[in-house]
Amino acid sequence: MSTFGKLFRVTTYGESHCKGVGAIVDGVPPGMQLTEADIQPQLTRRRPGQSKLTTPRDEKDQLTIMSGTEYGITLGTPIGMQVANLDQRPHDYGEMDVYPRPSHADWTYLKKYGVKASSGGGRASARETIGRVAGGAIAQKYLKLANNVEIVAFVSSVGKVAMPFIEQLESGESASTDFLDMLDTITQDEVDKDITRCPDSATAEKIKEVIMQKSAEKDSIGGTVTCVIRNCPVGLGEPCFDKLEAVLAHAMLSIPATKGFEFGSGFQGTQIPGHLHNDAFVRKPDGSLGTKTNNSGGVQGGITNGENIYFRVAFKPAATISKDQETSTYDGIWGTLAAKGRHDPCVAPRAVPIVEAMAALVIMDTFLQQQARQASAALLPKVDIHHSLLGVPPPAKQ
Amino acid sequence: MSTFGKLFRVTTYGESHCKGVGAIVDGVPPGMQLTEADIQPQLTRRRPGQSKLTTPRDEKDQLTIMSGTEYGITLGTPIGMQVANLDQRPHDYGEMDVYPRPSHADWTYLKKYGVKASSGGGRASARETIGRVAGGAIAQKYLKLANNVEIVAFVSSVGKVAMPFIEQLESGESASTDFLDMLDTITQDEVDKDITRCPDSATAEKIKEVIMQKSAEKDSIGGTVTCVIRNCPVGLGEPCFDKLEAVLAHAMLSIPATKGFEFGSGFQGTQIPGHLHNDAFVRKPDGSLGTKTNNSGGVQGGITNGENIYFRVAFKPAATISKDQETSTYDGIWGTLAAKGRHDPCVAPRAVPIVEAMAALVIMDTFLQQQARQASAALLPKVDIHHSLLGVPPPAKQ
Amino acid sequence: MSTFGKLFRVTTYGESHCKGVGAIVDGVPPGMQLTEADIQPQLTRRRPGQSKLTTPRDEKDQLTIMSGTEYGITLGTPIGMQVANLDQRPHDYGEMDVYPRPSHADWTYLKKYGVKASSGGGRASARETIGRVAGGAIAQKYLKLANNVEIVAFVSSVGKVAMPFIEQLESGESASTDFLDMLDTITQDEVDKDITRCPDSATAEKIKEVIMQKSAEKDSIGGTVTCVIRNCPVGLGEPCFDKLEAVLAHAMLSIPATKGFEFGSGFQGTQIPGHLHNDAFVRKPDGSLGTKTNNSGGVQGGITNGENIYFRVAFKPAATISKDQETSTYDGIWGTLAAKGRHDPCVAPRAVPIVEAMAALVIMDTFLQQQARQASAALLPKVDIHHSLLGVPPPAKQ
Amino acid sequence: MSTFGKLFRVTTYGESHCKGVGAIVDGVPPGMQLTEADIQPQLTRRRPGQSKLTTPRDEKDQLTIMSGTEYGITLGTPIGMQVANLDQRPHDYGEMDVYPRPSHADWTYLKKYGVKASSGGGRASARETIGRVAGGAIAQKYLKLANNVEIVAFVSSVGKVAMPFIEQLESGESASTDFLDMLDTITQDEVDKDITRCPDSATAEKIKEVIMQKSAEKDSIGGTVTCVIRNCPVGLGEPCFDKLEAVLAHAMLSIPATKGFEFGSGFQGTQIPGHLHNDAFVRKPDGSLGTKTNNSGGVQGGITNGENIYFRVAFKPAATISKDQETSTYDGIWGTLAAKGRHDPCVAPRAVPIVEAMAALVIMDTFLQQQARQASAALLPKVDIHHSLLGVPPPAKQ
Repeated sequence: MSTFGKLFRVTTYGESHCKGVGAIVDGVPPGMQLTEADIQPQLTRRRPGQSKLTTPRDEKDQLTIMSGTEYGITLGTPIGMQVANLDQRPHDYGEMDVYPRPSHADWTYLKKYGVKASSGGGRASARETIGRVAGGAIAQKYLKLANNVEIVAFVSSVGKVAMPFIEQLESGESASTDFLDMLDTITQDEVDKDITRCPDSATAEKIKEVIMQKSAEKDSIGGTVTCVIRNCPVGLGEPCFDKLEAVLAHAMLSIPATKGFEFGSGFQGTQIPGHLHNDAFVRKPDGSLGTKTNNSGGVQGGITNGENIYFRVAFKPAATISKDQETSTYDGIWGTLAAKGRHDPCVAPRAVPIVEAMAALVIMDTFLQQQARQASAALLPKVDIHHSLLGVPPPAKQ
Repeated sequence: MSTFGKLFRVTTYGESHCKGVGAIVDGVPPGMQLTEADIQPQLTRRRPGQSKLTTPRDEKDQLTIMSGTEYGITLGTPIGMQVANLDQRPHDYGEMDVYPRPSHADWTYLKKYGVKASSGGGRASARETIGRVAGGAIAQKYLKLANNVEIVAFVSSVGKVAMPFIEQLESGESASTDFLDMLDTITQDEVDKDITRCPDSATAEKIKEVIMQKSAEKDSIGGTVTCVIRNCPVGLGEPCFDKLEAVLAHAMLSIPATKGFEFGSGFQGTQIPGHLHNDAFVRKPDGSLGTKTNNSGGVQGGITNGENIYFRVAFKPAATISKDQETSTYDGIWGTLAAKGRHDPCVAPRAVPIVEAMAALVIMDTFLQQQARQASAALLPKVDIHHSLLGVPPPAKQ
Repeated sequence: MSTFGKLFRVTTYGESHCKGVGAIVDGVPPGMQLTEADIQPQLTRRRPGQSKLTTPRDEKDQLTIMSGTEYGITLGTPIGMQVANLDQRPHDYGEMDVYPRPSHADWTYLKKYGVKASSGGGRASARETIGRVAGGAIAQKYLKLANNVEIVAFVSSVGKVAMPFIEQLESGESASTDFLDMLDTITQDEVDKDITRCPDSATAEKIKEVIMQKSAEKDSIGGTVTCVIRNCPVGLGEPCFDKLEAVLAHAMLSIPATKGFEFGSGFQGTQIPGHLHNDAFVRKPDGSLGTKTNNSGGVQGGITNGENIYFRVAFKPAATISKDQETSTYDGIWGTLAAKGRHDPCVAPRAVPIVEAMAALVIMDTFLQQQARQASAALLPKVDIHHSLLGVPPPAKQ
Repeated sequence: MSTFGKLFRVTTYGESHCKGVGAIVDGVPPGMQLTEADIQPQLTRRRPGQSKLTTPRDEKDQLTIMSGTEYGITLGTPIGMQVANLDQRPHDYGEMDVYPRPSHADWTYLKKYGVKASSGGGRASARETIGRVAGGAIAQKYLKLANNVEIVAFVSSVGKVAMPFIEQLESGESASTDFLDMLDTITQDEVDKDITRCPDSATAEKIKEVIMQKSAEKDSIGGTVTCVIRNCPVGLGEPCFDKLEAVLAHAMLSIPATKGFEFGSGFQGTQIPGHLHNDAFVRKPDGSLGTKTNNSGGVQGGITNGENIYFRVAFKPAATISKDQETSTYDGIWGTLAAKGRHDPCVAPRAVPIVEAMAALVIMDTFLQQQARQASAALLPKVDIHHSLLGVPPPAKQ
């Protein structure tokens, strides 16, 4: 459905050519400063037309907060938000519309609903992600203010060009110290320095080449986005069905054009023997426990352990390409779907703020759930709990 | 939380050493034949102790249906099910319990709840999966009877040993015809012929060697499980947040020990240019549309397109190993967590029925949602729908 | 939270003085004709200022459909809707604002959220009901088109003035044939003929007097609204926690200013002996079963039985009155909250379309759930079901 | 469906003649002492056969906790609970089974599911309430320990015999001081002193007469149960659709045999003019605000205000009576459903612990939701909030 979350709930609406797109965010903590200025930057980051690497249309997505704040303070009531569509005419019938676009959602929408938006995929449109990014920006603001949580995503590969850490993982080793250190410090500003949003400059240069080449060929190419969540409180994630990684995976695979999700050591972790893969516990300077390595990606048993959470999301090559394609019409007649317009050859750079937004929604929602548990457990009278339930040895006999 | 699904809902309970584990399945269609005999085989397939490749404990999981059927027919009311735990004593305190097991859930459970099962991870125990498998078996039976849906999972890699299709994908090509053909025909019986549950005999032999070696080394190793869903109706999956792949990813990553999920061309699909990655539409013998290739993995825009759905799930090396491990106590004192007992060196073979069960729960739940939509839309009076909403050309002017 | 429903889901936003109020309706069946003209009439019916019996402000609530339709046809995607607020300035501080208004939500909102809308109750504002009425209008349209369901509410009492059927029930008898016959035929048009929305003209006259008198006294008075749902399909309602009457009660008591809900014989039914209260089954002309009387109010065991569903909702006297009131400031200083402005002396007439809307949301949502069950059960192979599960005698032995 | 609650979730299973009934309670705060001894007393209170006023069967409902506790301490994981059915044979076909019982659920279950439990209503059985009462007992224990919340229900009327406060309300006045004082102090023990569970001895005597008479006549009679919730924290209830009274109404109307719900002044409150009905605020000894009267029943704008919450629930005369009844067979043949067995002439006394249990589930779930909000808002940095959002005057100009 069009709602994500249990306590922090984002509900969205909107297709490409209707009057607008929007979202209602329910469960925002009251008493927080919030204006459009907190949200617009992430919307702007997701816009197409930001560089010659992405699609040239300029959507000018100006967001309006409709409700839920007064004098710039959240009331705890739902935040209604909206962005007008500039092109509101339903798409008129074109010669090429006899063809459902290959690997696009035209045909499946028609089969599911018996009718489809004339522009094609309807809610499969990238404009649908505006509501997510807006909701995520609110969550990001809260998490930063309340817990200093930082969420930073970046492009880690495009086509066969990948940042060095990926190749190293593919050789079957645990993540390198260099990579883990980078996760400790990387910022959105650093990511945005390069239009590829790949923070490794050598890789970024090669990625630019790949994208320019695909653009010249009227073709497209996929990529991966890696994301780190820093300073996440310990204890988030709801066993057994709503383990943190499960809800993160849900969130990420709900983004258009995604094909895979892995966290921590991921698929390559299947090749590392257990005694190397296990993350030994170590005492941290503040006396609490941390882990020496982080193959767990910050999550053990579905619950955050306080280490950096990191994961990688695969984005397929954009289905809409300018090249001619051989395919069938809705009626099954084989023919050629001819080139039309210019298109985004690689969605990965634009996906960066969307990945961050969905990550924020997940952390925010699980945080609220854990707050309910902790705060309510704290009100119980102290009882004499058996030592073995606390991981401490029995008191010495006298 | 402990409930999965919206209309077909499975709720589970149970840890390792409590009186038992169980599930309530709500939303089962009424009028279906159902007895324990429909469920027990999948439970038996997930049991440890089935071969020397897996852990030697024999759990003897005999399931009892408590409610929801009469004369072997489902009433439409909730199916209560339970399996007794044979070892019901809470674990007494041992010398080694001062150490939270590395990469296990002991420590995170303690931090989340302020208390933990004395046996360690509590709901992170593999026994928690019994309720899932039981619920999944009911869904599998319905889907087979009503739609001839077949769900078959198998081990596709262990450590660095992988079935040929994986290596081929890693070279950046679309899935081979051989692989796609195999997905068309493979059965649970074929999978079970080898104790590794890998259907490629050459790979299976090598996997056995790897597992025996890790067992001898008191170590563990991970693996991947691939799953195919055949004959799935067109139109399942609920945009935008509950796309089919999103809910599948959620389901899979909620299984203990998972690290990643990919569907169709997956992570490797990011390397294939769009014009090769796009699945052209072709007319099928029955007149409907299908796709020529299947990089989409049976899902486009979050909605099933009638082609085989296939995906791959990564399982990490089991965290519990018999080798000594250097790590810290709950109090942060560095030391050695000594070897104890014998453990499963690779969980992938046992995970096969769990993956199938979770896949069945997803398909069943989205199927019911789509039935609600289709059946209710069918009651509306026919209206004159604009041709462009149907993907057909406007009638010729006269 | 701000979402109602499971498959047909209405999510709303908006306070009194924010930019606007609105709703997202998810789960609307695709392929239905829908424009603003289907929704506006019910919004207009709920507006204040329609007569001298209600508050004189004219809110001019013009609704815009933002998404989810094209060429006037529903796409199956979420319907975004909005109505601008004409008075968008947050209320500035007035002398009287030191007093939380008695029996209003000012104080509880402040305590719940730590902050409150400056205008007072925020979401407790009557403007919050606009989204409900808009969502309900869509449900009403579908239910009428698909099942000929008709939902009509009317004012059945104001203060001590009640329609005759209520007095009769209070004497401890089952509902009269006259009353049940009226439920069979009454229409929205008939209800709207009188500004009191009471369809019994003698009672309506007396109600007018009561309201005028309360208005003159700067006081307010409560009332009850009775609602009938005709032609509701058999089998709706989800045992055990979501019995139809439970969800109806939830829906009705979520309307501002409500104090009670009863269905069928209601509170007075507690006084009728079982042998008179039980509704005997009778064969209907079409061969199906109906009931002779209808103390059950169309629902047995939480499931609709095909008879008229009827229920009654109590609305308290409006808390905002123009009379001076002795009460305390937020700081606990006793004083006088002085009269201000003109207010609605009785909310019951305006509540009529809101009650209808919430009833429609309930029926629509439970209808979709039952469609999912019926359509999926219909795909199962026929099995030989034990006669006692079908309420038929065993076949005669030979 | 069979799950109640959002964060504190009770899921139940079980019919009359299956192997057993049970519940899974998810979301129980960890670290609380809990054994069967905390739950059994409320189960015993709901059992039939406790006196000659109720049905003579002795169900002997011994509950077992299956999971979720260790050493008598809750782990925070789901509590599985079960009670065996002593009579587990599916009901064999009897001569009388050609008749769907009037006002019972036999016929509607058959129409909804296409099949029904041979014993009749299946989940409409009173045994279904065991799981609710067990879940409610856990909530009651937590709420008492953490917040000193006390929930006490009692029989307030049977047939036309009512406690004096009801008659007084019916005269159109606010609740008397005597009645409100009784709500302040009444205990479960006092209620249980009389088998009628009516705490007013004069009324109790008359109720006994009515019930004995109906029993002699093989007939049944309804009644009302009033319930008070004391010491409930301020701020519970989730606007706009999950107002506290809405969720309470949902909970109460989901109990079998209920016909109505009212809170505070209820239906009679519609007759009281606003200036008398409004509850003026007064400063309480501890400096916080309370209300002078309590027509609001402890809830304003859907949110608790710290005053006693009280409400009344109507129970119809039991549908199953021993008297002959004229009615139709499933096939529509008119005839006589003959008397059989002995039955409970009035369900109200047994309903008392069920009403308490459902009330506890509601308060517990809304409490957890509010804890999430409060605890998360508390982490935000202090901001300068406009005075008008806090109900305080602007600072004096200098």
